[in-house]
Amino acid sequence: MKEKLTIVKVGGAVVEDEEQLRQLLRDFMAIDGAKILVHGGGRRATKVATQLGIETKMVDGRRITDTAMLEVVTMVYGGLVNKHVVASLQALGGDAVGLTGADGNIIRSTKRQLKNGIDYGYVGDVKTVDSEKIAHFIGKRLIPVIAPLTHDGQGNMLNTNADTMASETAKAMSALYDVTLIFAFEKAGVLANPDDESTVISKITPSDFVRLKADGTISGGMLPKIENALQAIQAGVERVVITSAQAIGGLSGTVISSV
Amino acid sequence: MKEKLTIVKVGGAVVEDEEQLRQLLRDFMAIDGAKILVHGGGRRATKVATQLGIETKMVDGRRITDTAMLEVVTMVYGGLVNKHVVASLQALGGDAVGLTGADGNIIRSTKRQLKNGIDYGYVGDVKTVDSEKIAHFIGKRLIPVIAPLTHDGQGNMLNTNADTMASETAKAMSALYDVTLIFAFEKAGVLANPDDESTVISKITPSDFVRLKADGTISGGMLPKIENALQAIQAGVERVVITSAQAIGGLSGTVISSV
Repeated sequence: MKEKLTIVKVGGAVVEDEEQLRQLLRDFMAIDGAKILVHGGGRRATKVATQLGIETKMVDGRRITDTAMLEVVTMVYGGLVNKHVVASLQALGGDAVGLTGADGNIIRSTKRQLKNGIDYGYVGDVKTVDSEKIAHFIGKRLIPVIAPLTHDGQGNMLNTNADTMASETAKAMSALYDVTLIFAFEKAGVLANPDDESTVISKITPSDFVRLKADGTISGGMLPKIENALQAIQAGVERVVITSAQAIGGLSGTVISSV
Repeated sequence: MKEKLTIVKVGGAVVEDEEQLRQLLRDFMAIDGAKILVHGGGRRATKVATQLGIETKMVDGRRITDTAMLEVVTMVYGGLVNKHVVASLQALGGDAVGLTGADGNIIRSTKRQLKNGIDYGYVGDVKTVDSEKIAHFIGKRLIPVIAPLTHDGQGNMLNTNADTMASETAKAMSALYDVTLIFAFEKAGVLANPDDESTVISKITPSDFVRLKADGTISGGMLPKIENALQAIQAGVERVVITSAQAIGGLSGTVISSV
């Protein structure tokens, strides 16, 4: 039987709120067994960019990353947010180590080509995840804290979507571990009625997804999240849970499942 | 016989000049055996601080680090500079991993107390270096790239002098390795005449230092550098070399030696 590994992805809104972050990290530390934290930090990046007089341009929720913006996200994700999380986990007794894809060459990507005529700039599409290297850190009882940055092997850092990094890492690690991937966000789960937190859909299978997408129950930013989750399941991840950042240790939220 | 370990400390002036950095990293990669790079980044931190409207205050060459400045150095040292160096080494085939003292709890410090009535703010004085953990990374053929930041174990990052981090790391590692510590800077070595690069003092022992300090040959910023180096030698580091960033692989520069 494979050892359990829990990968928690937590977005910028939680990471950047000191009170919420503190609670999340306590809950994270209470999870048994091997674990990895993947974090965002987009709001803080936008704030620092604005302070530096750099305009933030988003297309379909993705950040256009020119040279100046790449420096901002490298500073904010790799430095400010990552080290704050690492130091906070250390204070809770967790031997965290902050990593980008470049560190230990754990996640390599290629610069995104033009898509529909849009140049996303220094944005990386994940190509390889070194599961053995990550397993080695875990075997040393270290907790990888992964920032949403990768590298191309040619000396360039690349801005990379944190959800994608979490699911690609989960897929790669599923060869070695029994992986649970938790997407922690601001709602209680996938909601049948977006305005009613009591309408959490407890389970979504591929056929459920087709139906919920067709009847419009699931739309917008939730679509790629669930597509991501279903791909992870198909690639060997045991379970994917979409839940509130306040409930990562619990049994609530939406489970994405193959059957 | 202990395995050889070379620790190179390189200052901000070199790290922030793309051409010089490229050459330095090539020379660094050419060094045989286990190695660690410790970098600065103060000039870039000052530049980013200025862009953010944060005033830089230095006392005796040390940065006063209030909350805002701590965020700047955490971003610049831990993110911008560290990840640029890591990605650049990866492109040269070096499996670098960027670390602050918080990562893997490798270097812990305490917040500096008032000194002569001066509050340096969030500045750390190194207390412990986990040589076993660092050796573990090296054993996995990883190259630690250490940013001048530590943590206090209570969740706070602390700004820490890069020279001190290099020499404290060298001291701790000397229990396990035959350590050479190289301070790479902008001059060819310790100069008898600061204006003449041909006057490199090839060797300085403790008794030489007393004499050179008394007659004024060595003064200013070079004093703490050599005091640091002599302490490292006394603590078991095999050799300390103060040399030009262009000559880290060579035999030039000043060797600090116990005899």
